Amino acid sequence: MSHTMQVALGDRTYPIYMAAGHLDNAQLLTQHIKSKQVVVVTNETVAPLYLERVTAHLQEYQLEVVVLPDGEQFKTLDTLNTVFDALLAKQFSRNATLIALGGGVIGDLSGFAAACYQRGIDFIQIPTTLLSQVDSSVGGKTGVNHALGKNMIGAFYQPQCVIIDVQVLNTLDDRQLAAGVAEVIKYGLIRDADFFVWLEENMSRIVARDEEALSYIIQRSCENKAEIVAADERESGIRAILNLGHTFGHAIETGSGYGVYLHGEAVSIGTCQAAELSYRLGWLSEAELQRIKQLFQQAGLPIEPPDNLTAEDYIRLMSVDKKNIDGDIRLILLKKIGDATLPIGIERPMLLGVLERH
Amino acid sequence: MSHTMQVALGDRTYPIYMAAGHLDNAQLLTQHIKSKQVVVVTNETVAPLYLERVTAHLQEYQLEVVVLPDGEQFKTLDTLNTVFDALLAKQFSRNATLIALGGGVIGDLSGFAAACYQRGIDFIQIPTTLLSQVDSSVGGKTGVNHALGKNMIGAFYQPQCVIIDVQVLNTLDDRQLAAGVAEVIKYGLIRDADFFVWLEENMSRIVARDEEALSYIIQRSCENKAEIVAADERESGIRAILNLGHTFGHAIETGSGYGVYLHGEAVSIGTCQAAELSYRLGWLSEAELQRIKQLFQQAGLPIEPPDNLTAEDYIRLMSVDKKNIDGDIRLILLKKIGDATLPIGIERPMLLGVLERH
Repeated sequence: MSHTMQVALGDRTYPIYMAAGHLDNAQLLTQHIKSKQVVVVTNETVAPLYLERVTAHLQEYQLEVVVLPDGEQFKTLDTLNTVFDALLAKQFSRNATLIALGGGVIGDLSGFAAACYQRGIDFIQIPTTLLSQVDSSVGGKTGVNHALGKNMIGAFYQPQCVIIDVQVLNTLDDRQLAAGVAEVIKYGLIRDADFFVWLEENMSRIVARDEEALSYIIQRSCENKAEIVAADERESGIRAILNLGHTFGHAIETGSGYGVYLHGEAVSIGTCQAAELSYRLGWLSEAELQRIKQLFQQAGLPIEPPDNLTAEDYIRLMSVDKKNIDGDIRLILLKKIGDATLPIGIERPMLLGVLERH
Repeated sequence: MSHTMQVALGDRTYPIYMAAGHLDNAQLLTQHIKSKQVVVVTNETVAPLYLERVTAHLQEYQLEVVVLPDGEQFKTLDTLNTVFDALLAKQFSRNATLIALGGGVIGDLSGFAAACYQRGIDFIQIPTTLLSQVDSSVGGKTGVNHALGKNMIGAFYQPQCVIIDVQVLNTLDDRQLAAGVAEVIKYGLIRDADFFVWLEENMSRIVARDEEALSYIIQRSCENKAEIVAADERESGIRAILNLGHTFGHAIETGSGYGVYLHGEAVSIGTCQAAELSYRLGWLSEAELQRIKQLFQQAGLPIEPPDNLTAEDYIRLMSVDKKNIDGDIRLILLKKIGDATLPIGIERPMLLGVLERH
């Protein structure tokens, strides 16, 4: 099963290629490289698995490889600077191409490096985790974390193309796979109720890594994401609904220390908190709330928040969020399964009620 | 004399306001601020002189001030991070406005901070040196230096407006004023031969700080810059001619250590090197070469390169330049006074001849 779709963004339009075995397709990759200088940025986990299969296509180029440590705690300005060091040491020009080979951290960080190096060089995303295939590699959000807030420093910067090979998921551990499913469920919740029902009926196939089921959720997730991004590239409106569960989730990630929770795990917990709040506001029925929690649990994801974060911690951490206006906390909530709100302010007692419950 | 011009960039079009006394015009500033959160970024030299006159307009806002050390050697990722620290400590949102109050270093660094903070917040340039008024505050080039190359990390990011008050030049020392004149002469050399002749006839008035003459060179420089930027925002073509003398100049700045030469001083020397090379190629007459050197000297600028840089140093430093392709050094040269080339590769012996001459 091979599939190509376009992310329609005018002169920044680019293709997403999806097929089992695409990692070995040299022409797919090299047709998007304009000059002879190529840098591959990856990490210590991915490099032994897939680096050689990619660099095999690049023997005719002036090739540089940067292998970073693995983990959200390394998504920092300091790590970013090591990429610049490598590029400048080899005198890479503005017409060089950067290939991001890895999961969300590698894609976000190297995409931001590509956005900033000499004010912008070409880059290509080869996502190797489910989370990055269904979400972070598509749409041009790049960046790094700050000690006081996740993804606080970055740029909107679109790749030349995204190359997705479903077979790389064979080497992903269960915890990482589940983390990706959290973002897949998100698409069902925010705008695709039929997909949510499909996921309820097929979650066991996904957990069992049925290749057809995995290919389907990747395709449907990318279609949803591409439509939203095409409608609102820089998140002045509808794109914000992609942040369902993320304000709670980012607070959990930052408050627990980057790397303790996987991003998708924090999003799972955060989405259940958002659903709980939507239920308390009278928008979701109790049955819908239970269906949501159950689906995350079936995917093998945590749904209970950590014990060590107080309501005050949440409020402090959530006060730094890109959806806020003049410091007021604003959240994406659910009117029903398949229908998310734009960011809205919530009265503090109602919000505290959900945060203090646990 | 009050003057307003537009930098025509579609939905990123913005005004440049020029007049003596504009620093005290509250409405000019506040009409471009959308939310109540405002941060002013300035440095230790400018703050005692002009900070209070700007913050006087901002008493109704949630105001934060960041005062950075003064100098090119602080235009780094580390200093950039101190701006992010301040914004995050005060939970500044994506709808905040950053005001850059200072010279080229402050404008470039804070513009880049605005480009990256939460993937982009509004910013306003209030340039306080001649160099930033005539060049760096207009056109959206932002960024910081890397130990291995100047302006290597950055973004194209346009301000909401630029506010120029010619009277702030009264507190600028002669060396800083001359550094700005280097970029003014550049406009004459690359595309405005009449202006070059006017500068030859009026340099004594400029050096004597005649307000009318200073206002005229600011206006004419901004007009030239705005036309070039409007034609080629992201430097895929003609905008590169603004880099006349800058490849040599950046090598001198980086090779001597940031802060030893002012940017305009290095550009003066570098432009004379480019003119020398243009003469050796048979494009400039000896008379033109002498007129060029003489004008920089009349402005009080150095025209001889430093003794401690070898030809090998230059080649190494010039090999990292944003105009290069696959590592080949490319330069802007002069066909005649008022007519610059696009970036071109030069045979190595010819280039070495100019570099080794001194």
